[in-house]
Amino acid sequence: MAPAGGRGAKKGILEHLDSGELVVGDGSFLITLEKRGCVKAGLWTPEAIAGHPDAVRQLHVEFLRAGSNVMQTFTFSASGDNMESQYFEYAEEAVWAVEVLKESRKPMAATMCIGPEGDMHGITPGECAVKLVKAGASVVGVNCRFGPWTSLKTMRLMKEGLRAGGLKAHLVVQSLGFHMPDCSKGGFVDLPEYPFALEPRVATRWDTQNYAREAYDLGVRYIGRCCGFEPYHIRAIAEELAPESGFLPPASDKHGSWGSGLDTHSKPWMGARARREYWENLLPASGRPFCPSLSKPDA
Amino acid sequence: MAPAGGRGAKKGILEHLDSGELVVGDGSFLITLEKRGCVKAGLWTPEAIAGHPDAVRQLHVEFLRAGSNVMQTFTFSASGDNMESQYFEYAEEAVWAVEVLKESRKPMAATMCIGPEGDMHGITPGECAVKLVKAGASVVGVNCRFGPWTSLKTMRLMKEGLRAGGLKAHLVVQSLGFHMPDCSKGGFVDLPEYPFALEPRVATRWDTQNYAREAYDLGVRYIGRCCGFEPYHIRAIAEELAPESGFLPPASDKHGSWGSGLDTHSKPWMGARARREYWENLLPASGRPFCPSLSKPDA
Amino acid sequence: MAPAGGRGAKKGILEHLDSGELVVGDGSFLITLEKRGCVKAGLWTPEAIAGHPDAVRQLHVEFLRAGSNVMQTFTFSASGDNMESQYFEYAEEAVWAVEVLKESRKPMAATMCIGPEGDMHGITPGECAVKLVKAGASVVGVNCRFGPWTSLKTMRLMKEGLRAGGLKAHLVVQSLGFHMPDCSKGGFVDLPEYPFALEPRVATRWDTQNYAREAYDLGVRYIGRCCGFEPYHIRAIAEELAPESGFLPPASDKHGSWGSGLDTHSKPWMGARARREYWENLLPASGRPFCPSLSKPDA
Amino acid sequence: MAPAGGRGAKKGILEHLDSGELVVGDGSFLITLEKRGCVKAGLWTPEAIAGHPDAVRQLHVEFLRAGSNVMQTFTFSASGDNMESQYFEYAEEAVWAVEVLKESRKPMAATMCIGPEGDMHGITPGECAVKLVKAGASVVGVNCRFGPWTSLKTMRLMKEGLRAGGLKAHLVVQSLGFHMPDCSKGGFVDLPEYPFALEPRVATRWDTQNYAREAYDLGVRYIGRCCGFEPYHIRAIAEELAPESGFLPPASDKHGSWGSGLDTHSKPWMGARARREYWENLLPASGRPFCPSLSKPDA
Repeated sequence: MAPAGGRGAKKGILEHLDSGELVVGDGSFLITLEKRGCVKAGLWTPEAIAGHPDAVRQLHVEFLRAGSNVMQTFTFSASGDNMESQYFEYAEEAVWAVEVLKESRKPMAATMCIGPEGDMHGITPGECAVKLVKAGASVVGVNCRFGPWTSLKTMRLMKEGLRAGGLKAHLVVQSLGFHMPDCSKGGFVDLPEYPFALEPRVATRWDTQNYAREAYDLGVRYIGRCCGFEPYHIRAIAEELAPESGFLPPASDKHGSWGSGLDTHSKPWMGARARREYWENLLPASGRPFCPSLSKPDA
Repeated sequence: MAPAGGRGAKKGILEHLDSGELVVGDGSFLITLEKRGCVKAGLWTPEAIAGHPDAVRQLHVEFLRAGSNVMQTFTFSASGDNMESQYFEYAEEAVWAVEVLKESRKPMAATMCIGPEGDMHGITPGECAVKLVKAGASVVGVNCRFGPWTSLKTMRLMKEGLRAGGLKAHLVVQSLGFHMPDCSKGGFVDLPEYPFALEPRVATRWDTQNYAREAYDLGVRYIGRCCGFEPYHIRAIAEELAPESGFLPPASDKHGSWGSGLDTHSKPWMGARARREYWENLLPASGRPFCPSLSKPDA
Repeated sequence: MAPAGGRGAKKGILEHLDSGELVVGDGSFLITLEKRGCVKAGLWTPEAIAGHPDAVRQLHVEFLRAGSNVMQTFTFSASGDNMESQYFEYAEEAVWAVEVLKESRKPMAATMCIGPEGDMHGITPGECAVKLVKAGASVVGVNCRFGPWTSLKTMRLMKEGLRAGGLKAHLVVQSLGFHMPDCSKGGFVDLPEYPFALEPRVATRWDTQNYAREAYDLGVRYIGRCCGFEPYHIRAIAEELAPESGFLPPASDKHGSWGSGLDTHSKPWMGARARREYWENLLPASGRPFCPSLSKPDA
Repeated sequence: MAPAGGRGAKKGILEHLDSGELVVGDGSFLITLEKRGCVKAGLWTPEAIAGHPDAVRQLHVEFLRAGSNVMQTFTFSASGDNMESQYFEYAEEAVWAVEVLKESRKPMAATMCIGPEGDMHGITPGECAVKLVKAGASVVGVNCRFGPWTSLKTMRLMKEGLRAGGLKAHLVVQSLGFHMPDCSKGGFVDLPEYPFALEPRVATRWDTQNYAREAYDLGVRYIGRCCGFEPYHIRAIAEELAPESGFLPPASDKHGSWGSGLDTHSKPWMGARARREYWENLLPASGRPFCPSLSKPDA
């Protein structure tokens, strides 16, 4: 794990979170490496690490430079000085996993791939959070399947469930990097565009700053993303929360805050884009007038 | 330069084109490396090659695996066994460049960053093509600034101009990887989304196959792309034209043709996505119902 | 009141509903007469009946021909052989009105202008329905403020509330003739397009047939509409439910079912539009590529 | 014909135009009466005048109140003190008609249903205008088939053609009341939404004021509309050009300029809508997130 807080001390995630620090997760591996030609869609197996180690290493470096202070191994398993179990669509399974991992006596984070409607048995996000914490998880939240605003809505419900149950835990959110308000309960895999025509839905860096701010204000301190999250999206989280974390990520040497790199442009309308109000208020066009805004999920 | 045709012989671009072979260009460097955290938007200088040589090398590898058989150095200058001059918005300047390069006695390719309305002095694409060929260029075409369909329209006008003038040349097209039918004469830099909110406009791989086919049918044999062109877009060109070139690119080991990797999926609606008709007819939603389809350019 | 069922007998609404017959309401007066130049937006007072009696009479004739078998007087008050009280945003007020009208010993219909979130005090649609029926209303439902799909969702909640409370009543729905999924609790007046730029939201006749069918299947037997409902929309309700009512409205002499009037057109693609599948599956374009699909309400 | 200029003098259209006065045409009969239940789509025959004389009369009254000072008889033939021939898609036919009508020795207006690409034989709008004027027409222009902005583009080309040919004529524009930038040469009948799903394309009153202003600035003095033009659209023309004509139409007693009727509303955000800037800058949403902005014409 990379040092959180930019300081050299080698602490575990839980120590960072316990001391009130922000943890910035990393981003998308499978979908990003698929676009780089190293992973096959469908099976989505992480054999890239064997076949294309340089590509995997390079992506890790990019996320690290972008500000990630957690590097998940590209094997979907847990390792190192903390345990993490994720991608559960049933609260029951997630609880089992937490109980098994508990024997390792390491701090545990558990995330579910659910939306505001809850798990596949209809257990609400609030109840899921309560079950996970009671089973022993120190960090609970969601990952994958839903877009940023939907995932934050789920987090609000988890937080409320914990509050109502008189429980405490750290919160983690790792949404997709795509806009998908049209998802149904099964999430993005059921949208007709999955997985090869999601391009128009990719979040901008400004959307991501917005997401990071909302997550922080909600009390989430471990903020990452899942599929669709490129290095510049991770950087956007780190930049938005630089006032709180106290430092900018290395890759900010290649990024002017709120478009400031454009201010010396010779065309005046380009210079006018070098400010926060411009990008915050822009409603970006799709360039696709024959396409709709939303799709009906297949299930 | 990588071997064209997958065969070992080290030929120059012109020899390939003269023998009727397809040349697949490479993709986007600046915009792609900006998203990977290695280039700063605004100045767009290629100093990444010094600061982040691994990142640059990795991107070259990705394009190569995707099927590019031309690797442009990331310096915007010409080198090796052919000369290329590009990104001219005035026919006059482009002609000067060709005349200067002619002294090198190497085959020359010249591309202009113009759309169907012609250069900044109103010289039509047809006239531009004629001037460039008369000045000594062997390969003429367009690069950057406009989306795929607009660039192909410009190519049609160039081809028609050459035909009317009784001239012959190889054709090259290197459009942007973004949908931008709303561009005015100045191209994408004048769209309000440039350069930090172009995400919704990114072409899918299927759009790109379509583009490659249309370009080929038009007689263009050097097909590449410019900003926005990721490795999987280059692969889409190489795959679409595999029947003509006779081989698939290396990265196709990680890509099922027309979504075929999905055919073993347990959800039946997912399996139904493993076919050409599905992806060809899909109209991908933007996921952004508060945003328009088109923008008004700033100039 | 016009004869329901197309048969001469002069029955009251309640008798029609009690005998299982369908009642088709009338449509939009204020917004329609505003477009015809007889009502002023803002105050929306029904003084047109004095200043432009021919225009009001003509619109009544049009609705009657279209199949309405209820003609509401254009005064917003109750009259004739039944009493109706409508446009309440508080359950409390609606109950008072029903209690006052009860003294008239006439059957009573009560509609509220609420959406799925309930009244302005947060009383759910189900509770509102229960209160109204307990106060003495025989017919309960919603009118105005929300689009067809939203109003049907509210009706589903009212029906469920009555069922849970062991109560029975006839159901009435009179939604707006506009698509407005983006409404918040206050309904369409809070959308930025109200009242002078609602054009792109106007329902087609096919949308309206769909709405009528869903309402009927839900058990609603008094189906009308509110603002935005033109005569051809009323006709669409009557035509969709002709198999149930047993007759077509007079104005169907000027309307081929599902576009059948186009079948003799000389252009083959026009003839292909003379069938149900065509219109049911069409996704009509807005013709406005610079406009979004949804708006954010002002409140 | 109704008195132009609001003054009692009975002058012919040509006299009005010759004296520099504005002529406001009337609006849509067939499509409007279809929605009122009196005309059947497909054949579109004007037998409504026999079957529903009150409905026809009422619509005439509405257009008159809205400011029309030309009432076209609902028979598509010419009558009264001037002759008008319209709806030609071939310049040749239009010229024949003008030559025949010339024998009546009455002033002639001739409009063609063409777009910027010209007639069905490829004769440009400029050439069409020249032919018509040379054949004897005093007023030339376009009607039907295309939306407001497309029709104005055609008018610009006609005007330019006349100027280049050293000819003079009055100009008339009678566009559709629908937004249809996606039309191909055949106009709106080839769009998939024709004729039963055009609702989302209906122009607002503000669009229409904009259209009237542009037409006037271009030198057009006979401004009307065709299908889709309701009475309030005609009023919008008359109101926009009231400074030039010197008077408001009767129906303006029911219309506050630029939304001024809303200024006394109790909700502050509604009051904020009572001004020109608000409506001029509003981009009205379609309320249909599953529908596209543009369609591909069938031909």
